[in-house]
Amino acid sequence: MKALVLEEARQLALRDIDLPLEVGPRDVKIKIHTVGVCGSDVHYYTHGRIGPFKVDAPMVLGHEASGTVVETGSEVTHLHVGDRVCMEPGVPQFDSPATMRGLYNLDPAVRFWATPPIHGCLTPYVVHPAAFTFRLPDNVSFAEGAIVEPLSIGLQAAKKASMKPGDVAVVIGAGTIGAMTALAALAGGASRVILADVIKEKLALFAGNPAVTTVDAREQRLSDVVREVTTNWGADVVFEASGNARVYDDLFDLLCPGGCAVLVGMPVDRVPLDVVAMQAKEARLESVFRYANVFPRALALISSGMIDVKPFISRKFAFADGLKAFEEAAAARPHDVKIQIEMD
Amino acid sequence: MKALVLEEARQLALRDIDLPLEVGPRDVKIKIHTVGVCGSDVHYYTHGRIGPFKVDAPMVLGHEASGTVVETGSEVTHLHVGDRVCMEPGVPQFDSPATMRGLYNLDPAVRFWATPPIHGCLTPYVVHPAAFTFRLPDNVSFAEGAIVEPLSIGLQAAKKASMKPGDVAVVIGAGTIGAMTALAALAGGASRVILADVIKEKLALFAGNPAVTTVDAREQRLSDVVREVTTNWGADVVFEASGNARVYDDLFDLLCPGGCAVLVGMPVDRVPLDVVAMQAKEARLESVFRYANVFPRALALISSGMIDVKPFISRKFAFADGLKAFEEAAAARPHDVKIQIEMD
Amino acid sequence: MKALVLEEARQLALRDIDLPLEVGPRDVKIKIHTVGVCGSDVHYYTHGRIGPFKVDAPMVLGHEASGTVVETGSEVTHLHVGDRVCMEPGVPQFDSPATMRGLYNLDPAVRFWATPPIHGCLTPYVVHPAAFTFRLPDNVSFAEGAIVEPLSIGLQAAKKASMKPGDVAVVIGAGTIGAMTALAALAGGASRVILADVIKEKLALFAGNPAVTTVDAREQRLSDVVREVTTNWGADVVFEASGNARVYDDLFDLLCPGGCAVLVGMPVDRVPLDVVAMQAKEARLESVFRYANVFPRALALISSGMIDVKPFISRKFAFADGLKAFEEAAAARPHDVKIQIEMD
Amino acid sequence: MKALVLEEARQLALRDIDLPLEVGPRDVKIKIHTVGVCGSDVHYYTHGRIGPFKVDAPMVLGHEASGTVVETGSEVTHLHVGDRVCMEPGVPQFDSPATMRGLYNLDPAVRFWATPPIHGCLTPYVVHPAAFTFRLPDNVSFAEGAIVEPLSIGLQAAKKASMKPGDVAVVIGAGTIGAMTALAALAGGASRVILADVIKEKLALFAGNPAVTTVDAREQRLSDVVREVTTNWGADVVFEASGNARVYDDLFDLLCPGGCAVLVGMPVDRVPLDVVAMQAKEARLESVFRYANVFPRALALISSGMIDVKPFISRKFAFADGLKAFEEAAAARPHDVKIQIEMD
Repeated sequence: MKALVLEEARQLALRDIDLPLEVGPRDVKIKIHTVGVCGSDVHYYTHGRIGPFKVDAPMVLGHEASGTVVETGSEVTHLHVGDRVCMEPGVPQFDSPATMRGLYNLDPAVRFWATPPIHGCLTPYVVHPAAFTFRLPDNVSFAEGAIVEPLSIGLQAAKKASMKPGDVAVVIGAGTIGAMTALAALAGGASRVILADVIKEKLALFAGNPAVTTVDAREQRLSDVVREVTTNWGADVVFEASGNARVYDDLFDLLCPGGCAVLVGMPVDRVPLDVVAMQAKEARLESVFRYANVFPRALALISSGMIDVKPFISRKFAFADGLKAFEEAAAARPHDVKIQIEMD
Repeated sequence: MKALVLEEARQLALRDIDLPLEVGPRDVKIKIHTVGVCGSDVHYYTHGRIGPFKVDAPMVLGHEASGTVVETGSEVTHLHVGDRVCMEPGVPQFDSPATMRGLYNLDPAVRFWATPPIHGCLTPYVVHPAAFTFRLPDNVSFAEGAIVEPLSIGLQAAKKASMKPGDVAVVIGAGTIGAMTALAALAGGASRVILADVIKEKLALFAGNPAVTTVDAREQRLSDVVREVTTNWGADVVFEASGNARVYDDLFDLLCPGGCAVLVGMPVDRVPLDVVAMQAKEARLESVFRYANVFPRALALISSGMIDVKPFISRKFAFADGLKAFEEAAAARPHDVKIQIEMD
Repeated sequence: MKALVLEEARQLALRDIDLPLEVGPRDVKIKIHTVGVCGSDVHYYTHGRIGPFKVDAPMVLGHEASGTVVETGSEVTHLHVGDRVCMEPGVPQFDSPATMRGLYNLDPAVRFWATPPIHGCLTPYVVHPAAFTFRLPDNVSFAEGAIVEPLSIGLQAAKKASMKPGDVAVVIGAGTIGAMTALAALAGGASRVILADVIKEKLALFAGNPAVTTVDAREQRLSDVVREVTTNWGADVVFEASGNARVYDDLFDLLCPGGCAVLVGMPVDRVPLDVVAMQAKEARLESVFRYANVFPRALALISSGMIDVKPFISRKFAFADGLKAFEEAAAARPHDVKIQIEMD
Repeated sequence: MKALVLEEARQLALRDIDLPLEVGPRDVKIKIHTVGVCGSDVHYYTHGRIGPFKVDAPMVLGHEASGTVVETGSEVTHLHVGDRVCMEPGVPQFDSPATMRGLYNLDPAVRFWATPPIHGCLTPYVVHPAAFTFRLPDNVSFAEGAIVEPLSIGLQAAKKASMKPGDVAVVIGAGTIGAMTALAALAGGASRVILADVIKEKLALFAGNPAVTTVDAREQRLSDVVREVTTNWGADVVFEASGNARVYDDLFDLLCPGGCAVLVGMPVDRVPLDVVAMQAKEARLESVFRYANVFPRALALISSGMIDVKPFISRKFAFADGLKAFEEAAAARPHDVKIQIEMD
């Protein structure tokens, strides 16, 4: 079967590869329609590794996918041939301690698409557990279905914050994850999101939203804006989605007493934490690792119009132009948020 | 000072009455602009009592108010003369055990406007603690400021539910409180609100909202709609805002496993609770009594556009026509949600 | 294989029956050592049914069991032949929506020992999923291992209450479940448990505990005791473990503002809920259905000495005397809390 | 009035000083009986400052106190002359936003005994708000009453962890705060506390408790012990009570998936936080700043016997020997946990 295969760093090929397509009793087989290009895909492409995960053997990329069910296993009841679906890419051991506690994303046995040595989904057909395959509502497009994965990270972050209606939220970083987190925060209870970045084009995508205050961090101090918006009380929640270590310099200045910061961005090195400043506000720090039990929520929010992801799907490429899609994604152009690949 | 005084049941007078107007060091004096007519005001008007609270002496009505600060106490720093404000009507003992636990609404010592024997605010001037007086953002009108009180009940309910982004919520009852609760649920994380009532005009106010499914309970079984919308899983949250005891007949059929019902409506008598059905879903029941720490959140949500209360402000009457306003409110016309009185 | 088989109501036989003993790759085979007799076992014995669950075909009784691993499936790594273990009796579908949310006890597909038509464990050998089989710490006896099941219900209740250290807890009912709940509440944060029953012998088992106030409900009003112990504030948590509908008459008098009642007992009929009294305290009602992720916690609490279940294991019978054990359990003698059957 | 007055660093005097003793309507006047010497008192004594808080003028030390009510204000109803009491030393502005949210400890306006420029309580009489004065149960001694303050920090930490019954807790540091936190964790739901320190005498105080595993950190790696005790799953909660920055090196190795670390100790400088390791477990970090609404809980736990603080009260000095008490406390002898001063 044809697939977009990463041979090693910077060596990407659209070529035939042998992939297992046996449909187990609780699996479905899906004809892939759209696959988003994720920052992690690009990082494997450019570096051949992410931290301890190293591409030692050819690996199919891609994990943000939608498609159509073409075959169902004998025990599958909630999906049928022809269903339009999107897929959650990380499959745990179902009877593990973490899964049974509702924390299946933290199960060490998780097999996640396009995380070595597991193949991804940039290929015409995949087989996947039905339990991790979700029907798209009729008014949700394949493109929207394929962006559910990054949106789910934002929703996991909003869920972890235990937001209350009317919270003021700060989101630091307006890249794909920051943008999805801002949408999630607004859908999850925020009365206002204060969104900070250094790229005007990213901020511009939120220009029309009266509930979003954008902050160009090269021109304004974020803490000044927060102080003014909240009349010195501080934000209820800060979502750190930049991975920039300097954010930690004055992180707790942004928070109200009893506030919460959710760490979504992944700094390369350790960051300097001001424990005493944290204690003075009895702040809480939460962290997210992917998501659990969020895909159906993301689909419901898109379908009802509470979240509009369409402005964040920047460009589409054909499967045949997959390499070009990766080169463009690696170029990180200011106007691009999400680049997607459409299969034939 | 002139005031709208309830002498006894059905005896309402716009007349002079002696009211204390001394401004303490932590108080402000406010010129009232708009006062909403609440169902409880109407109930005192028509029945002279609500449960144990009996109107034994002439009492000024009204507790949903906005206005302008005209004097500030010596220790007040966050408010200034000329500030447009709305007021939280229930003032606790500030050093009580309940207040210090953040539950000031449950303090037995609360003095609440227009709850016997405490006078309300349907009078040109009131004195109020600055801590319970909130500045209106520039883009929030006096009318919107005066509806913050009932909206806060909805927000208290949404807060109690501990909603997660993407929840499916059912709201039973589309009167003022039900409508405010539906708005609060949407702002608080719901992907969809299934709103049930028997009055088409109430439901019609939500007709344009793609995230709201309205159910005319005379034509459809609510449990059927919930089952269909949630593909048999059940709603995450049910807000009971009707006070109708029959809702409890199949309350737990509406809920998903681990779901939550928030009891907002006040049934006249005890209701039959199906404990075994509740246990089979490990359901949680929450209840609300007014609100605590919610007014600033309500204002922020209105100001940012996340909640639009304007369609629910049905009609306005001049202070001089206050009796007419109460008669109209008591008539409970299908098209009326909130009736307000504007002072001169 | 020999088993204690319920043919129909009141027809219990120790006889041979054909039971499947195939060990799947993630299963273990266990030689049963001790089985507790549960109220539900007794109810099936005396009535042949519990609500909708009817004994239509011969069924092996028993679901509170400990034993020794005698065979392990090919994929089992955390258990070994010779391990002393206890077993969680309700096995869900592992990839179901409820299981993945950490609510596997609420999965409609759960197969629970000795709940028709699923056979129980009063038989020398059983096969069980390794994921639901827990190693006994060295200092935990088989008898203690076999009482982990009812203790887990108490712990589930304490978990649901979200207790805080120093809570005052009321436990209504001092039968097996009430007693286990009292132990769980003390281990889970209570500074004091006020335990009410009408049987002096049950209360006497807690006589030596300075943190327990026992209330003979025929002699004292529980609400008076609570008022005195809490100087009129009310209890933080009430555990209803009696199933007596009259408890609901003044349930909310027992609670403090913002307090929580956990419904453990199962009343036969609907109970009259005073919604307005509940709201006046913004009370929360939680409910439990068995337990999830609690067995390891129960074992840890027994092993460390934080919970001592030994006084509640009243009498033991040999497997050969199993019918006698059921007759004695059905007699409900005041001195008996838990009766257990020891296999050979 | 005589008082133990810190003139400047290392200049402590038992001398006369003018202190206000006017009793307001909601105040009580207390004859002090016992005052504990806190690490912060000692730090002011030895350094003349703690971070930004500098002793610029003579200040009475002491904030851990018990005594007897000798006068009550006109509005005080829950206390009477002769009541034995202990006092919460930090008094907020009662109508502040933080107080009304239940976070009065975070109110910037808090006036805290012996934190410059507020005088402490090492003097025969003090006047204090009745709301922050708590009656000692009959079986709680003055010495125990005076240790409620540090115990409350431990309880605040346990409360913040949202412990569940059966949690395995790690406590790092067995000084006064670590010891109190260990007691709080056990009372708050832990099945086991793994307590680490480098001073054998501190650990020895827990030797008799079967639920405590002590770890001499010079001899064993804490992470090895945690791994063994939890069979590689990790601890549910880690309480950091040492203030040692090196604890952060492998903090998240100690935690289970979804676990929580509560930061109680105050490191002098920023600590290096491994965000990626935190995310891999979706760990939560909580922090504490003193306590709120905890004193009555501490008293209840001592009174019922769930917490025994007596072994941690090491030595007592007479008021006349107050300087000696401070010298001894400053010497930080291994056998000393809490040193107390008894007034005449």
